[in-house]
Amino acid sequence: MKKLYVIKIGGNIIDNEAKLAAFIKDFAAVDGLKVLVHGGGKLATKLAADLGIEQQMIDGRRITDAATLKIVTMVYAGAINKNVVAQLQANGCNAIGLTGADGNAIKAHKRNHPTIDYGFVGDVDEVNTRLLQSLLEQNIAVVLAPITHDGNGLLLNTNADTIAQEAAKALSSIYDVELIYSFEKSGVLMDAEDDASVIPSINPTTYSELKENQVIFAGMIPKLDNAFAAINSGVSKVIIGKAEQLQQLITGEAGTTIKR
Amino acid sequence: MKKLYVIKIGGNIIDNEAKLAAFIKDFAAVDGLKVLVHGGGKLATKLAADLGIEQQMIDGRRITDAATLKIVTMVYAGAINKNVVAQLQANGCNAIGLTGADGNAIKAHKRNHPTIDYGFVGDVDEVNTRLLQSLLEQNIAVVLAPITHDGNGLLLNTNADTIAQEAAKALSSIYDVELIYSFEKSGVLMDAEDDASVIPSINPTTYSELKENQVIFAGMIPKLDNAFAAINSGVSKVIIGKAEQLQQLITGEAGTTIKR
Repeated sequence: MKKLYVIKIGGNIIDNEAKLAAFIKDFAAVDGLKVLVHGGGKLATKLAADLGIEQQMIDGRRITDAATLKIVTMVYAGAINKNVVAQLQANGCNAIGLTGADGNAIKAHKRNHPTIDYGFVGDVDEVNTRLLQSLLEQNIAVVLAPITHDGNGLLLNTNADTIAQEAAKALSSIYDVELIYSFEKSGVLMDAEDDASVIPSINPTTYSELKENQVIFAGMIPKLDNAFAAINSGVSKVIIGKAEQLQQLITGEAGTTIKR
Repeated sequence: MKKLYVIKIGGNIIDNEAKLAAFIKDFAAVDGLKVLVHGGGKLATKLAADLGIEQQMIDGRRITDAATLKIVTMVYAGAINKNVVAQLQANGCNAIGLTGADGNAIKAHKRNHPTIDYGFVGDVDEVNTRLLQSLLEQNIAVVLAPITHDGNGLLLNTNADTIAQEAAKALSSIYDVELIYSFEKSGVLMDAEDDASVIPSINPTTYSELKENQVIFAGMIPKLDNAFAAINSGVSKVIIGKAEQLQQLITGEAGTTIKR
């Protein structure tokens, strides 16, 4: 099986022009097949504020109403996605930017929550591996925006971490997939305040021990549970760490590697 | 050679939700390989106004400054392109939305005009027929937004008529291409005020006669010159007419057909 990297970058990189440029250069230099999933950053919030559109929050959660959906579609699928693609091209990396609607790449359904109406938020149903494979095999890096569709004409705002995970899981039927989550910290930390306390490697046994001894920062547990879910669905490795260290994350010299 | 339709819809359709929905239904029903090129409509102008960004005009021409480029990228590549794609999917037509940056589909250069600085406006250099063919052969309709890139990281605002023409010309090396320009009138008119005075067919000989006798409305001449340029570069037919009559344009029952 060929190796495929599915790499997610968070909003903190998207919002920082210099960091984004450095990351794009590093991503362009990664050998082999690759998928980039980008989050949204603060641009959408800023545009909403500039247009006087209030962000609806229910129980601390952001609701995607119709006006917000228009904004995130413009910002994620337009501004961010196309600028990332153009910059990858400038770095000699052929890339194509897609939402879930494009080529029916990712189908989702509008979230149906018993108590909260999240609005136009999508939960992923299916990733079109055939389309992604046909692009990847032409040596085109696929850049996924966090927007999906329901097949009935609705675009849906969708969590970028989830898109990365679902794409990685689906593509692991064809490729040897490594899933890399980049965020602002250096990896999974023993001490949330100490960026040098990275746990280099976690497997199911050590994960149980770490949780039992309450070594892991509670905020990391959902991320790690998701990582193990990916591993259990065929992804060969999940790596968590800083976007600024992409090359070292891939070689295992930085970040936390989660394996069976 | 397989037949390919390259169909351009103008802003008047984009701006009208009901007309757009009807057009998308008709486009989805067109048999065979197809490319849709959409213009921008008034959405970008409205968003710029809402954000208090002034449209710069020089000698009656709109200038794409940096702020306007951001807006057209969001509106054309984000809002319009993705909604068209999602609606095509809902009509059973698999479609993928691209800018020129995606997969290096259309490379352009920033317009270098001796007296007017148009800003971030692109003139097309090259259409990546290999990429478009690989998508079309998977029975995916390609939906092109009027945004290109220069290969050095710049996105460029590009005339949708030009994109349609350049795509049609380039793809005529592989396909039997019919290029359809839809606009607000029923075709090339003998009398600009009379929508029933459509000239059903024009060839180089009759075009010379029509021009000589000043039968053709002056505003149509650049459009027709472009149509003949396309014909002379391998496109087999250019059809000009109303988007509401897409099916009849294709069968030759409506609009003006321009042929050798």
